[in-house]
Amino acid sequence: MISYPNGKKIYNKPLISSGNRGMDLEESINITNAYYRDNNIALIYKKPTPIKLVKMDYEKAKIVEAYFEQPSTTDYNGVYKGYYIDFEAKETNNATSFPLANIHAHQIEHLKKVIEHKGIAFIIVSFRKKEEVYVLPANIVIQFYEAGVRKSIPYQTFIEKGFKIKEGYALRLDYLKIIDEKFIKDFSK
Amino acid sequence: MISYPNGKKIYNKPLISSGNRGMDLEESINITNAYYRDNNIALIYKKPTPIKLVKMDYEKAKIVEAYFEQPSTTDYNGVYKGYYIDFEAKETNNATSFPLANIHAHQIEHLKKVIEHKGIAFIIVSFRKKEEVYVLPANIVIQFYEAGVRKSIPYQTFIEKGFKIKEGYALRLDYLKIIDEKFIKDFSK
Repeated sequence: MISYPNGKKIYNKPLISSGNRGMDLEESINITNAYYRDNNIALIYKKPTPIKLVKMDYEKAKIVEAYFEQPSTTDYNGVYKGYYIDFEAKETNNATSFPLANIHAHQIEHLKKVIEHKGIAFIIVSFRKKEEVYVLPANIVIQFYEAGVRKSIPYQTFIEKGFKIKEGYALRLDYLKIIDEKFIKDFSK
Repeated sequence: MISYPNGKKIYNKPLISSGNRGMDLEESINITNAYYRDNNIALIYKKPTPIKLVKMDYEKAKIVEAYFEQPSTTDYNGVYKGYYIDFEAKETNNATSFPLANIHAHQIEHLKKVIEHKGIAFIIVSFRKKEEVYVLPANIVIQFYEAGVRKSIPYQTFIEKGFKIKEGYALRLDYLKIIDEKFIKDFSK
């Protein structure tokens, strides 16, 4: 996000080419979440990646040895219209399916628990080669994972049971539009 | 949390003396949240502290220079009975009041936004010398902060407008009991 001297916030980044090519999914979602926050639409953040801290230089308040840890939950959560929102975002270069290896077992477990506790859980998947980004409800991901038959979710499943996110400029990836129309409409607490 | 060979989870830590003395607030809340999660009561986590990464040793996947950053949100969030829960936890050695300097301006801003988006926002404050821990609704904190008259919230305000958390053994600091009784009862979405 760029702040200009007049205080107007510009939610853009130079696009390398058409669509969002050149901008990764995480960046697009972060920009979208900043837009949601600044326009009082929702309060959704990416969680920091946990680190295992081994050594500090306390005098300089500097971390001198640490390692990234596997997050035990999903990357994003927050609140929208009183609903708890929780999701994981992944990109794939695979054009025909989304490999389940991209989602860890404890993340599946986490998404299941979000549903149990009446939150709204889903994944956002970017098919890079198709330049298409989908919301897939977590229950579909869980079904595939637990069936254990396939190692991936077919692209066709995203067409049939997922929802394509319309890409925009200021509002890069308006995934909450889908949450509004497809989840909250018949979401009973 | 200790996992014993028989798989039974024990939510304890040796207590140094009476009460929770010797155990800090964060540790007590983490143990409580683990209890909530394992017993399918709620899904609440402490967010990792964000770091500013300066230098990596990529071969060893080791962080060799990084600094802790000021979190722009609160420390804890999650979902309980479909409600979005968001809070900050602080300890004080001050026996008569809670210094507002403990809460940063952007955290106050964040708590305000949580309320706007219909989440449940509060702070948990441990008065170490009294060995008492309170839930104080975020709107009270915001009022004090914005009034700008005092630099602290009197202990008396915690008695009058806050709710003392009952301390237990397995369920160390059952703050959700208060959320249930005092927030959700008349919490309209």
